[in-house]
Amino acid sequence: MKDVRIAMVGFGTIGRGFAGVLLEKRAFLARRHGLRLKVVAIAEYDGSVIDERGIDLNRVLKAPLDHCRGWSELRSQDVLRSVGADIALELTPGNIKTGEPGLSHILSALDAGMHVVTSNKSPLAVAYQRIMRRAALRGREVRFEATVGGAIPLINLYQKTLQINEIRNIYGILNGTTNFILSKMEEESVDFSIALREAQELGYAETDCSYDVDGIDTAVKVVILSNAIMGRNVSLRDVNVTGIREINSETIELAKKHGSAIRLVGDVGRLEVSPRLIPMQHPLNIAGALNAVMLETDVAGSITITGAGAGPRETASSILSDVIDLSVGSL
Amino acid sequence: MKDVRIAMVGFGTIGRGFAGVLLEKRAFLARRHGLRLKVVAIAEYDGSVIDERGIDLNRVLKAPLDHCRGWSELRSQDVLRSVGADIALELTPGNIKTGEPGLSHILSALDAGMHVVTSNKSPLAVAYQRIMRRAALRGREVRFEATVGGAIPLINLYQKTLQINEIRNIYGILNGTTNFILSKMEEESVDFSIALREAQELGYAETDCSYDVDGIDTAVKVVILSNAIMGRNVSLRDVNVTGIREINSETIELAKKHGSAIRLVGDVGRLEVSPRLIPMQHPLNIAGALNAVMLETDVAGSITITGAGAGPRETASSILSDVIDLSVGSL
Repeated sequence: MKDVRIAMVGFGTIGRGFAGVLLEKRAFLARRHGLRLKVVAIAEYDGSVIDERGIDLNRVLKAPLDHCRGWSELRSQDVLRSVGADIALELTPGNIKTGEPGLSHILSALDAGMHVVTSNKSPLAVAYQRIMRRAALRGREVRFEATVGGAIPLINLYQKTLQINEIRNIYGILNGTTNFILSKMEEESVDFSIALREAQELGYAETDCSYDVDGIDTAVKVVILSNAIMGRNVSLRDVNVTGIREINSETIELAKKHGSAIRLVGDVGRLEVSPRLIPMQHPLNIAGALNAVMLETDVAGSITITGAGAGPRETASSILSDVIDLSVGSL
Repeated sequence: MKDVRIAMVGFGTIGRGFAGVLLEKRAFLARRHGLRLKVVAIAEYDGSVIDERGIDLNRVLKAPLDHCRGWSELRSQDVLRSVGADIALELTPGNIKTGEPGLSHILSALDAGMHVVTSNKSPLAVAYQRIMRRAALRGREVRFEATVGGAIPLINLYQKTLQINEIRNIYGILNGTTNFILSKMEEESVDFSIALREAQELGYAETDCSYDVDGIDTAVKVVILSNAIMGRNVSLRDVNVTGIREINSETIELAKKHGSAIRLVGDVGRLEVSPRLIPMQHPLNIAGALNAVMLETDVAGSITITGAGAGPRETASSILSDVIDLSVGSL
């Protein structure tokens, strides 16, 4: 049995989802992977819980953090510097312009000798090369399966299962909210504003809907995939972005008559985000809040992978996949 | 640079496809994976080519095998016993009742201390447990990504990227020929016999079309997935099989009116192969000779993977993926 110490930064929806799955999978992790994952620190913006023997996750999931044993006003940076952990999880929401506070968290964790697993897109979109250089300098790894496609193991699919293939292009539906809105408009012949409101009521649309519907979220994922899989060095301003605000029910009806649907597609090779016509039985023509990504390869042809693009539980699957890899392989 | 010696048994469409991709990817394999793969033997039913320094693949792809240097009438079993190789590739067509000659090839290769990579479904469908016991006894591995879903890295997707997940069920379109026929009937409103003839003319349907259209090929893959991923111990006679011969264009039109398509689905959990209604924008609703498989997991939700289910080049991607894993990890 291998003990692995985890420091979590961020304990919102994603962090709590991760903690819940970790509790549920404790026996499975030991049996299948020979791992005992011990959360030794949870840092939030106003303070932290620290327990080197392992925090009682049942307790922190039930009570507010600042009611828990081990609570102090120690800030995340200080936690990362002072706590001895093997892997830091960066699970905070990010500012897309600066990448902060996630960027500083990731760099501090690497400097402290930890591997990093992150679900936070912003630092990678802003400073991918800088992060990877720092990781190389420290001899540590930064893994980020959860940043693109939620539960879909897209990056690992490429790196671990298509080893002989060179990637010609990657494109797909990388934002579940816009896909939900477009399928709604199509199924119920309603206008954009009505479909958007329904998405917001169901909790699919984020507070600031612009991030989703104007294609920015998709563009951020295009940047990450371009850097991580296609080996480029691009940032958000290199991506040509058109969102879905201008799509009306007439356009959708017209597409339907021609046997197609309109979907917001992120095209990694062309660095473009735009609504496109997708034939009815094309693998990318999916309904609801799913994500679907097509990898065009030189030997295997086109491989498409589809699944939940968000959700705390589903995202935990990707975070834990990275954590297991690092625990088994690099520690 | 690591030298890996390969013995190939079977040099038909799949074997030649593999040799072609190997030639094309020689530099990539060295650069990306630090591997030099050397084919030291190619065995066919009437004799073999052997060259311990590495067979000139350009030459064997151009001339008939028995015109090549190193040709002898040595049979495959003797080749496996006498040639020193690290990995044996079993790429012959198989007899679904006996699993032969592939089954004997696999056991002989294991007994000779080789790992085995196979694209041949029959031995696994007939004697999965026996093969795996022998592999364990000899301390060797048997890998078979190419047997299910052609280019689709289905088994590796589960084993390498969804590590925290338990599989609730697996089902999907596992036979490209029947999917081609059903999509043809749907798109062109033609009957089964006409669509079948077109599939045969295009080379999608095998010589004995019963294997495909009566669902046997799908059932064989259900058996492999059930044993390999769901940890059971089943064989072909445990699977309830209904093919697509009884589907007529009226049935398909009726399904279409209800917004669905009819697809031949292999259901691994229920050990059942049968035509089912699939809603139009469901991830399994794909057209043409593709395969699509849905993994229902307990944490990541449903993950679907779609791609070419056959083709010598595409299949070589899966064979090489297994070969690379064994070369890097187990040699």
